[in-house]
Amino acid sequence: MTLATTPQTKPLTDEELQKINAYWRAANYLSVGQIYLLDNPLLREPLKLEHVKPRLLGHWGTTPGLNFIYVHLNRLIKKYDLNTIYIAGPGHGGPGLVANTYLEGTYTEYYHNISQDAEGMKKLFKQFSFPGGIPSHVAPETPGSIHEGGELGYALVHAYGAAFDNPDLIVAAVVGDGEAETGALATSWHSNKFLNPVRDGAVLPILHLNGYKIANPTTLSRISHDELESLFVGYGYKPYFVEGEDPADVHQQMAATLETAIAEIQSIQREARVHGFTERPQWPMIVMRTPKGWTGPKEVDGKKTEGSWRSHQVPFGNIAKQPDHLRLLEDWMKSYKPEELFDADGKLIPELAELAPKKHRRMGDNPHANGGILLHDLKIPDFQDYAVDVAEPGKAIAEATKVTGKFLRDIMRLNQESSNFRIFAPDELASNRLDPVLEVTDRVSTAEIYPEDDHLSADGRVMEILSETSCQGWLEGYLLTGRHGFFTCYEAFIHIIDSMFNQHAKWLKTTRHIPWRRPIASLNYLLTSHVWRQDHNGFSHQDPGFIDHVLNKKAEIVRVYLPPDANTLLSVTDHCLKSRNYVNVIIAGKQPALQYLNMDAAIKHCTKGIGIWEWASNDKGGDPDVVLACAGDIPTLETLAAVDILRQHFADLKVRVVNVVDLMTLQPKTEHPHGLSEKDFDTLFTTDKPVIFAFHGYPWLIHRLTYRHTNHKNIHVRGYKEEGTTTTPFDMVVVNDLDRFHLVIDVIDRVPKLGSKAAYVKQQMQDKLIEHKHYIQKYGDDVPEIRDWKWPY
Amino acid sequence: MTLATTPQTKPLTDEELQKINAYWRAANYLSVGQIYLLDNPLLREPLKLEHVKPRLLGHWGTTPGLNFIYVHLNRLIKKYDLNTIYIAGPGHGGPGLVANTYLEGTYTEYYHNISQDAEGMKKLFKQFSFPGGIPSHVAPETPGSIHEGGELGYALVHAYGAAFDNPDLIVAAVVGDGEAETGALATSWHSNKFLNPVRDGAVLPILHLNGYKIANPTTLSRISHDELESLFVGYGYKPYFVEGEDPADVHQQMAATLETAIAEIQSIQREARVHGFTERPQWPMIVMRTPKGWTGPKEVDGKKTEGSWRSHQVPFGNIAKQPDHLRLLEDWMKSYKPEELFDADGKLIPELAELAPKKHRRMGDNPHANGGILLHDLKIPDFQDYAVDVAEPGKAIAEATKVTGKFLRDIMRLNQESSNFRIFAPDELASNRLDPVLEVTDRVSTAEIYPEDDHLSADGRVMEILSETSCQGWLEGYLLTGRHGFFTCYEAFIHIIDSMFNQHAKWLKTTRHIPWRRPIASLNYLLTSHVWRQDHNGFSHQDPGFIDHVLNKKAEIVRVYLPPDANTLLSVTDHCLKSRNYVNVIIAGKQPALQYLNMDAAIKHCTKGIGIWEWASNDKGGDPDVVLACAGDIPTLETLAAVDILRQHFADLKVRVVNVVDLMTLQPKTEHPHGLSEKDFDTLFTTDKPVIFAFHGYPWLIHRLTYRHTNHKNIHVRGYKEEGTTTTPFDMVVVNDLDRFHLVIDVIDRVPKLGSKAAYVKQQMQDKLIEHKHYIQKYGDDVPEIRDWKWPY
Repeated sequence: MTLATTPQTKPLTDEELQKINAYWRAANYLSVGQIYLLDNPLLREPLKLEHVKPRLLGHWGTTPGLNFIYVHLNRLIKKYDLNTIYIAGPGHGGPGLVANTYLEGTYTEYYHNISQDAEGMKKLFKQFSFPGGIPSHVAPETPGSIHEGGELGYALVHAYGAAFDNPDLIVAAVVGDGEAETGALATSWHSNKFLNPVRDGAVLPILHLNGYKIANPTTLSRISHDELESLFVGYGYKPYFVEGEDPADVHQQMAATLETAIAEIQSIQREARVHGFTERPQWPMIVMRTPKGWTGPKEVDGKKTEGSWRSHQVPFGNIAKQPDHLRLLEDWMKSYKPEELFDADGKLIPELAELAPKKHRRMGDNPHANGGILLHDLKIPDFQDYAVDVAEPGKAIAEATKVTGKFLRDIMRLNQESSNFRIFAPDELASNRLDPVLEVTDRVSTAEIYPEDDHLSADGRVMEILSETSCQGWLEGYLLTGRHGFFTCYEAFIHIIDSMFNQHAKWLKTTRHIPWRRPIASLNYLLTSHVWRQDHNGFSHQDPGFIDHVLNKKAEIVRVYLPPDANTLLSVTDHCLKSRNYVNVIIAGKQPALQYLNMDAAIKHCTKGIGIWEWASNDKGGDPDVVLACAGDIPTLETLAAVDILRQHFADLKVRVVNVVDLMTLQPKTEHPHGLSEKDFDTLFTTDKPVIFAFHGYPWLIHRLTYRHTNHKNIHVRGYKEEGTTTTPFDMVVVNDLDRFHLVIDVIDRVPKLGSKAAYVKQQMQDKLIEHKHYIQKYGDDVPEIRDWKWPY
Repeated sequence: MTLATTPQTKPLTDEELQKINAYWRAANYLSVGQIYLLDNPLLREPLKLEHVKPRLLGHWGTTPGLNFIYVHLNRLIKKYDLNTIYIAGPGHGGPGLVANTYLEGTYTEYYHNISQDAEGMKKLFKQFSFPGGIPSHVAPETPGSIHEGGELGYALVHAYGAAFDNPDLIVAAVVGDGEAETGALATSWHSNKFLNPVRDGAVLPILHLNGYKIANPTTLSRISHDELESLFVGYGYKPYFVEGEDPADVHQQMAATLETAIAEIQSIQREARVHGFTERPQWPMIVMRTPKGWTGPKEVDGKKTEGSWRSHQVPFGNIAKQPDHLRLLEDWMKSYKPEELFDADGKLIPELAELAPKKHRRMGDNPHANGGILLHDLKIPDFQDYAVDVAEPGKAIAEATKVTGKFLRDIMRLNQESSNFRIFAPDELASNRLDPVLEVTDRVSTAEIYPEDDHLSADGRVMEILSETSCQGWLEGYLLTGRHGFFTCYEAFIHIIDSMFNQHAKWLKTTRHIPWRRPIASLNYLLTSHVWRQDHNGFSHQDPGFIDHVLNKKAEIVRVYLPPDANTLLSVTDHCLKSRNYVNVIIAGKQPALQYLNMDAAIKHCTKGIGIWEWASNDKGGDPDVVLACAGDIPTLETLAAVDILRQHFADLKVRVVNVVDLMTLQPKTEHPHGLSEKDFDTLFTTDKPVIFAFHGYPWLIHRLTYRHTNHKNIHVRGYKEEGTTTTPFDMVVVNDLDRFHLVIDVIDRVPKLGSKAAYVKQQMQDKLIEHKHYIQKYGDDVPEIRDWKWPY
C-alpha cells in the first residue's frame, strides 16, 4: 500500500493567494447574507434590525468549507480546462453553492431577476429560505446540482453514478463527516471497485472533516490520524490530508494537494487508456480538516462558536432582543470586506470574476448536472420480436423475466457503443433470470478477478453489489447525468431504499416546475422474486409493500405495473424504458408460469392497462353475476383456476374476469392521469355486483385506490396479509386466503343465486384445502393437479 | 496502530484436534441431512430416491464455516467458562445453527419431539425447510438466536446491542462477506466507538470470507490482504487472519487465534475495570478465509463447486433424474463418517458430546438469547408528576417532547443502577428536545473527547450516531436481550429503517407462537420534527408515511399514537414503555404549542384512544351537523381554529370535535384489537353527517382504516399531499389544504343548512388565504393573529 504524503510545495503566488482568498471571502459574504439579510446587501448603510430576516433559517457550519473547495476547484478547472461537477454532500450547504454559482454568473443566467448588482444581491439574499423562495439545501433549483442535500449519505454513490461512462468528467464529491456515518455512505467508498479508468471518469472524494454534526462530534473526526489514514487505504484510496485553520496556510495546502490529486487522476487515466485496464488503481482522495463555521464568529455569548457544533445552523439569532447580536452580525459580514470585493453596482470586481471558469466549464453550468440536455433515446429493438408464442391462453409455460432478459440483452447490445445503459442489481441478476444480458456484457468489477468467475470483467455493464443503497444511488447519479438504467431487486428488500426513493421522487416532482431542468430517463424497477414465490426463503423475504410506499408520492411521478405474463412484461418494459421523469415499478415473476396473452392481445391490454379477459369470462351480452378481478401473476393464476372450478360447478353463473396491469387505472381520473373515468370503471366493475379482487400486494391498497368508486362497497379483496413461512408455493397463497379454493368460497358467499349446490361446492373446497395440507406435510410439495393446472378451455 | 500477527502456536493436541474435527463433521453431517433427507438419517441403508426430499431448499455454502466457528467457540467457552452468544450474520446458515444446538442438547430440550436418536434425527431432517417445519434461516425458532438471517447487514449492530450493559457477555458475531457489502454493516464496524469495556461486554467480530455471494465474488474477498488489514485497523480493530483449506491446519489456526482474541478481550476488560476507562481499546477481530461450501463436493457435473458460488444454495439437485447425484450425495454424507459420530441409537457419542458446554453456557441455551427471561420492568415514576398545568383548554403553551424529556430523564435516573435503559437517536436528541435527559446522563462515546464537547462521555446512556440503521439495530439487539429502549428520530428519515422494522415486526409476530420465547420490551419510536414543522428544512424532510408502512404489519404487533399535546404524550409514553412485544410509533411535535387537556382529561382520553372533545363541541343533547375529526397536534390546532371561525359565523351550527390519539381505534374491531365496535364508531362519527377529518399523515390512510364503517362515504380527509417547500409553519398547512380556512370551506361545502351567509364566509376564508400569502412573501413570517391564535372560549 502507498501512503500519501501531503505535498509540501506552495504553488500559489502571493497574488494568486490573495485573489483566491478574496473570492472565497466573497462567497462567504454572500452565504452569510443569504442566511441573515433582507436588505442593505452591501452593508453600505449601518445594519439595522429591519435589514435582518425575522425568521433565521439555514446552515452556516459547513458552508465556508464548501466555498473553499469550490474556489480551489475553479482554479484547477481553469488551469487544466477540466470538465468537473461538484457534489455537495453536507446537507445544508445551500447558501454556499448558490453563492458560488452567483459569483460565476450561472445563477443570473438561469434566474434573470437575480442580477449581478446590488438589487440582484438583495433578491438573492431575500429568497433564501424564504416563503416562495429557495430551499436551504443544495436542491434541484440550484444550478450545477444533481444532489439534494437534506437526507444524507448519497454523495459518493451519486458521484460514481455520474462518473460511469463519462470518461472526461471529474466529479468532485464533498462528503460531510456527519453523513460519513450513515450506512449508505460507509459502503459507498467501495464504489472504486466498479470504476474503470479506461471508460469511466473520475471521482475525487473530499471528506470534509469539520468535526461536528447538529450536536455531537463526528466519528471520523475523533479517531486518530493513523486510523483515518488506514481506513481510506483499506477502502482502496490514497488519502491526502489538508488540515488547518489559518486560511493562507490551508489555501497553499489545498492548491498543492488538488494539483497532485488531479495529476494522479490524469496519470491513472492516461496509463489505463493507453495500455488498457490492468489493475484497480489507488485513486486519490482528500481529507480536509477545517473548523466548522470557519471565519464565522469565534464566540457568541461567551461560548465557543467557530470550530464547534454551535456553528451548525444559524450561529446566533435573537437579533431583535440582543442588539449586540446585530453588531456581531455586522462585524462578521464586514470582516469579509465587501467593499473590496464588489464594485459600485454591487457586482464582483473583474479581477476576481476572472477566477471563475467560462461557460460550460463553470460547475454551475456543466451540462452533466442537467442531464436531460445530454439525454439520447435508447436504441430499443421491437419488443414484439421477443414474443412468447401463445396459441391459446393459459396453456404455454414461460419464465417472464427470462424473456425480458433477452429483450434487455439486445437493448444492451444496441447501446453498447453509446455507453448509456446499465443494469443494477444487488447480486440478483441471475437469480432474477435476467442472465441473458450476460451473453453480451459482463458484470463489472475492477477488483481482483479469478478465472472461475462468471461473466465478470472491468468492462461489464451490469453492476452488482449486495447493497441496495449503492445500486439505487449509482442509478440515480447515472440517470441524473442523462443516461438510462434498470434496477432489478427482490421485492421484499427494495424497502431498504424507501427513503432514497422518496428523495428521488421529490427531486423529480420539483424539477417538473423548473423550466431549465430537462426531463431525464425514468427510474425503472423490476421487482421479482416476489412475495408469492418466497416460499423457499420464508417469511423474512415476504413483503409486497413497496407499492404502498410508492403511491404516497405525487401521482404525476409514479407508475406501478403488474404484468401477468411474459408478453405483457415485454410491453410494459418497453414502455417504461422509453418514458421520462417517472419512477416506474414493475412487479413480475421469474418462475416458469402460464402464459395468457399473445403479443397482439398483450399490447392491447397494456395500452388500456386494465380490461375484461373475454376468453375467461362467460358474461357476454349481459351483466355478470360476479366480477373476478386480478392484478399480479399469481393472483391471475389463482383467479383463472377459480373460474375453472366455478364453471364446472355452476354452468349458469356469469363470471367476468378483469385483469389489471396498470394499477393506477383503479384510481379516479381526478387523482391520477391513468385513472379510469367513473363511467369506465362502472362498465368494468358494474355498479352493484360482487367483485372478488385477487391482488398481489396488501389488500387494503385496492380499497385505498377504489374507495371513491360507485361499487366500492361490493369489492372484496384478497392479498398478502402477512402470513407466510418456508412452505410450498401453493401453500403461500392458501395461508393468505388468496388461493383458488378460497376465491370460489368467496364467490359462493357473495352470490345468492347459486342455489342448493352452493353448500356442497363450498364443502368440497374446504376438503380440498384440508387435502392440500395433508399432502404437503407428507410430500413436501404441492398436489400435482394443483401445481400443474392449466386453463382447460 | 498495532498490526496483529497470526499466533503461530498449535494449541490443540492431536486428540483434541481429532475430537474437534469429529464434532465439526457431525455438525456438517446434520446440516447436509437437513437440506437433503426425508428418511434414512444415519445412512444405515443404501440411500434411495425416496429418502431424499422432493423439493430441495436451503443453503449449504456458509454452513460449514458457521459450524467450524461454533465448535471452536464451544472449546473456549468450556475452557474459560465464557458467557457467550452466537450471532450468525450470513443469511441462510439455518442448518448449521440447528445442527449445533441439536448436538449440544438444547434443541431437544426446547422441542421434545426432536429427540437425540435416529427417530429425532429423522424429524430434525424432515422439518427443515419443509411445510409446517422450520425456516432455512437462523430464525426465532432457532434456540440461541436473536438474529434472523435473510435480510442481511445487521449482525454487528445486533451484536453490539446485545453487548451493551452486559459486562460478562462475549458476543461472537459472524459477519458474512456478502452482508459486509451492505450499508448497514459497513458503518456498523464503528460501533466500537460506543462500547465501554468497563460496563459493556465484548463483541468479537468474525468476518467469514468465503468469497462468494449468490452469483458474484464478494468485494472484501477481492481486495489485497494489505487493504483488508488496513480497513479493519482503520475501523479500530486488531485483525487476525485465519486462512486455509486444510481442516487440520485451520483448526490449529482458529484455536490459537480465538485463544489470543479472548485473552485480549479479557485483558482489555481487566485493565479498564481496574483503572477505569482511559482510551478506546483496539479490540480484536478475526478474518476467517475458508472455502465456500467447505468439505462439500469438489465438483458437480464437472464444475468447480467447493470454493465457488455454486455452493451457495443446494450444491446439486435434480436427484430424481440424475442417479449419479444420488451417489454423490451419499458419498458426500458418508465422507463425514456418521458411524463414528453417532451411537447405535443415533445419539452423538459421549466423547464428542462432552465437547459442548453445559446448561446455560451452551450457546443455544444462553438466556441472553431469549431476553424475555432476563427482562425486568423499568422503574417508572408517576408520569402525572410531569403534568403541564392546563387550567383551560387551548391557552397554555408547552413543548410536548421537552416535557416528556423530563419524564425520560427521571426514568433514566431511576434505572441508572440496573443499567437496562438507553435512548437512541441519529444526532437528534437535543434537536428533538429530549435534552433534559442529559441532566442525568451523557451521550456515549469512547472515541476522543474534547473539553468543549457537550455531555459526552464513555459512561453516557444516550446513543447518538448519524446512522438510523445503527440506532435501530443497536436498539433491537438491546431489546432482544431483555432490556428497554427508546428511539427518537425525525419523522421523514425513519424510512431509512423501513426494512429493518419489517424484520423486527416479523420476528415479534413469529415469537408470539413460540412458547419458550418470553415477551420482550416493545420497540418504541418517538417521531418528531415531523412533517408539519419541517417548513425550515424543506421538502426533503417532509414525509409522514412511516405510519402507512407500519400498518402493513400484523395488527397484533403494531400501535400508532398521535398525542395532540404534552399531557397526552406523557400518558402515551408511559403506556408504551410498559408494554411488551409491540412496535409502538408515537408522533408528536417538539415546538411550543397549545395545550388542551389537563392530566385527568389526558389520561381518560388516552385510555379510550379516541373521543369527543365536549369543550370544543356545541352539539350537546343532540346530533351534530358536522363532525370535525383530527389526529395529530397540528391538525388538532387547525381544527380548533376552524371551529372558532365556524362558531363566530354560524352560531346555530352544531359542531362535534373528535380527537384521535390511538389511530388503531379507527379500524373495525375485527381488524385490530384496539378497533372500535361498529356501534361505537357510529356513535362518534354518526351514520350520515359530514365528517371533516384533519389528519397528520397522508389522507388515504384514514380511508384505508375506515372504509368498512357505515359513514365512510361522508368522511372527507385533509392531510399531507406531498406539497411543501421551505416556507412558514402555517403555509405548510395551507399548501396542503389542511389549514383552518380550508377546513371551514370544507364544512361550508358539505353542510347545506348554512344559508345565505355561507357564500360570504367562504369568500372571507379565501381572502384570508390570499392575505396570508401576501403577508409571508413580504415579511417571511406568518400573520401574527394566525400564529398566536388561542382557543378563545
